[in-house]
Amino acid sequence: MSERVLVQQLQGLADGPVTVSGWVETVRDQKKVQFVILRDETGAVQLVNPATRPADPSAAEPVEAQDAAALALTDTISNLSTGTFLTVQGDLKHDERVKLGGVEIKIGTLDIAAAALPETPIAADSGLDKRMDWRFLDLRQRRNNLIFRVQTTLEHAFRSYWIERDYIEVHSPKLMASASESNAELFEVPYFEEKTAYLAQSPQFFKQMAQVAGFGKIFEIAPAFRADPSFTSRHATEFTSVDAEISWIDSHLDVAAMQEELLHTAFQAVKHKHGDEIEELFGIEVQVPRIPFPRIPLAEAREIVKARGYDIPRTDGDLDPEGERQISAHVLETYGHEFVFITDYHPEIRAFYHMRDEETGLTKSYDLLFKGVEITTGAQREHRVDVLMEQAKEKGLLPEHLDFYFDFFRYGAPPHGGFGMGLARVLMLLLGQDSIREVTYLFRGPTRLAP
Amino acid sequence: MSERVLVQQLQGLADGPVTVSGWVETVRDQKKVQFVILRDETGAVQLVNPATRPADPSAAEPVEAQDAAALALTDTISNLSTGTFLTVQGDLKHDERVKLGGVEIKIGTLDIAAAALPETPIAADSGLDKRMDWRFLDLRQRRNNLIFRVQTTLEHAFRSYWIERDYIEVHSPKLMASASESNAELFEVPYFEEKTAYLAQSPQFFKQMAQVAGFGKIFEIAPAFRADPSFTSRHATEFTSVDAEISWIDSHLDVAAMQEELLHTAFQAVKHKHGDEIEELFGIEVQVPRIPFPRIPLAEAREIVKARGYDIPRTDGDLDPEGERQISAHVLETYGHEFVFITDYHPEIRAFYHMRDEETGLTKSYDLLFKGVEITTGAQREHRVDVLMEQAKEKGLLPEHLDFYFDFFRYGAPPHGGFGMGLARVLMLLLGQDSIREVTYLFRGPTRLAP
Repeated sequence: MSERVLVQQLQGLADGPVTVSGWVETVRDQKKVQFVILRDETGAVQLVNPATRPADPSAAEPVEAQDAAALALTDTISNLSTGTFLTVQGDLKHDERVKLGGVEIKIGTLDIAAAALPETPIAADSGLDKRMDWRFLDLRQRRNNLIFRVQTTLEHAFRSYWIERDYIEVHSPKLMASASESNAELFEVPYFEEKTAYLAQSPQFFKQMAQVAGFGKIFEIAPAFRADPSFTSRHATEFTSVDAEISWIDSHLDVAAMQEELLHTAFQAVKHKHGDEIEELFGIEVQVPRIPFPRIPLAEAREIVKARGYDIPRTDGDLDPEGERQISAHVLETYGHEFVFITDYHPEIRAFYHMRDEETGLTKSYDLLFKGVEITTGAQREHRVDVLMEQAKEKGLLPEHLDFYFDFFRYGAPPHGGFGMGLARVLMLLLGQDSIREVTYLFRGPTRLAP
Repeated sequence: MSERVLVQQLQGLADGPVTVSGWVETVRDQKKVQFVILRDETGAVQLVNPATRPADPSAAEPVEAQDAAALALTDTISNLSTGTFLTVQGDLKHDERVKLGGVEIKIGTLDIAAAALPETPIAADSGLDKRMDWRFLDLRQRRNNLIFRVQTTLEHAFRSYWIERDYIEVHSPKLMASASESNAELFEVPYFEEKTAYLAQSPQFFKQMAQVAGFGKIFEIAPAFRADPSFTSRHATEFTSVDAEISWIDSHLDVAAMQEELLHTAFQAVKHKHGDEIEELFGIEVQVPRIPFPRIPLAEAREIVKARGYDIPRTDGDLDPEGERQISAHVLETYGHEFVFITDYHPEIRAFYHMRDEETGLTKSYDLLFKGVEITTGAQREHRVDVLMEQAKEKGLLPEHLDFYFDFFRYGAPPHGGFGMGLARVLMLLLGQDSIREVTYLFRGPTRLAP
């Protein structure tokens, strides 16, 4: 590996020879002096070169012998295009007058790794679709780079929380012989010898399988697929799902208690590591959510929303997106909290595998809203196979498609539950973005498969 | 959450009331006393119940009044089937005579969560295919549980290594508009409005995209898909790929240096956390590999193998599986090392995007062998777009399919390289297993899509 130093290390180094590598952000090519702003993954630094221009043969003064290398370097810099990746060896000098970090590098040698075409097809303010076409250039923006460093910290905090508590990480298959959630929005994959596989819509069945296998507590962060034809800012055909499942719970509230602690811990890690930069680049102060998060039964939430003057048009008893915003606004005003668990959903609007409360008949499940948007569904699962089969039948599901799943519960099962959380939704809301497309490395939608 | 304690905590607790939950491993139903071995995710404990049998009305002695609850408990235990999940409240007692951990719990109450069918369809020594049919039961075996705890530790050590060094984690899309590796072994997915998507065979293009986006250093652990019709012990149609990619390298040897340090660190973590248990259950002493790993150019490796008396039948200049075993045996005998990097492959047997050495014409790439099996291909990538296009053309690839990829390099690019490593292969070899099916949560192959 070369002796490259990162831009963020420069301030801590003494004046003297250094090597830096990165890409050209801007060039200021003045007659007597040239400036290049070079960016790497850690910051930007000003490079400087006293220009050596070809002498004018028609000038009155005599032509002095010119340094060929200096002439070539000046010419190279004049022709640098934005985005060109290069390595510079030069002399580091601390200088308070340099606004960018108080340091400057006088260029000694300059080696171009790969030159960029002169015309950059997008600008920072190009439309989202255009930026997605050129995502690899769009991601060079500082704020976009920060999104993925925040994501890295967030996920590592999730995993560390779990691993400190002896959770097992699983990689459940994405190729399945049947649907995992519903027969709608399902991608089919022609498989060997005229068979058909389906892409997993969630790891639901397989994370439950870990419970009957006696794994106790598990997690998975992996892609999930939905052939969802919608174009909203919150949906994608492929997304990263953050999943956990635990045994020996008393109810869905044990799952909620784990999830709120997880989010508290992870947001703390993000604030600690990136809080200042998030404030600088996104104008957002990261709030570490207090534990416990407020919990409101769905029926009560609907009453509150109605009392606020919004009549939910849905007739199925659920909240709609505006209802979710309203109840979150109420929670923020009343409790100063950005999160709220909505609990006790009617079985009609929940998956067949959600356990039902014997007294109320309502499901032992919750949705978690963050800043007015649903980011999670969690629940205790029905682990008694006869009840489970009855509930599937009630929903009109064909038992022959689910028999492999029912088998899981025929040889013993612990009470268990878990949640699935959309990683991009959390990031979008955490950073105040208005679409998951902004926080997805490469978004996939009905009309978007490239790059 | 209930007051459950884990079995591994029992030895450290004082005698007295405890609650444990788990599944029935065995029942010994003797006339005067009943024993149940209960297993949870941390271990097994003996439960004991002094049996209360219904009095024989024909007996000579007078029938005393019997405790109905005691009768019922005895009856419940007599009817317990293996695999039944239950919770027991009882009295913990330390007793040196109890072989299983020196503790015993006298059963107070016993609550069955879900009873198992009496006939377990597999045994520990059932054939692999049969065990895969009932994977959720197979995974209850201690050694299978350990496999996934080792996997968890291994992966967390990988990620921690990278995150401590400021790598960014990416989630690259698995739905693509074109092939990522080759047009063979490609799963097609009918996409919206008669379009076709393809399942990613590797994250190759997208982790390179992160380099031109200026991310510097990235990693991803995610599923990859190959429509590979083969049935070997080392292939699957879906597998977990461990990938990293870094910028500003001088050659593939910088990638190798990172990978060997990564493996050294991760194996150390596994040995520290699970070394004793691996030795007990798999009879394997985990070797933490010394750094640096031996490096042998391919041509030299072939000479060594030939000198050992094995004539490689392949005519393309590569090693075959027996050749890989031979060179690994040589390295183990000569250097006492279980790993070896084979370097300097001819371009004909490497992907078009591998960079070539200007002097030798050979690729700047390596394979990493572990105990005689290839677990990784690594390389410096060609980042100069004109050279890259030329190399693709040479391989007969159609530029129109790759144009989105070539675009990545038209707007500046750093020198970069990386590797992809099959997680299951590493685990298989680490634990001395003879098939990746043993160490995959749910294996997927040409004839295996369920459960």
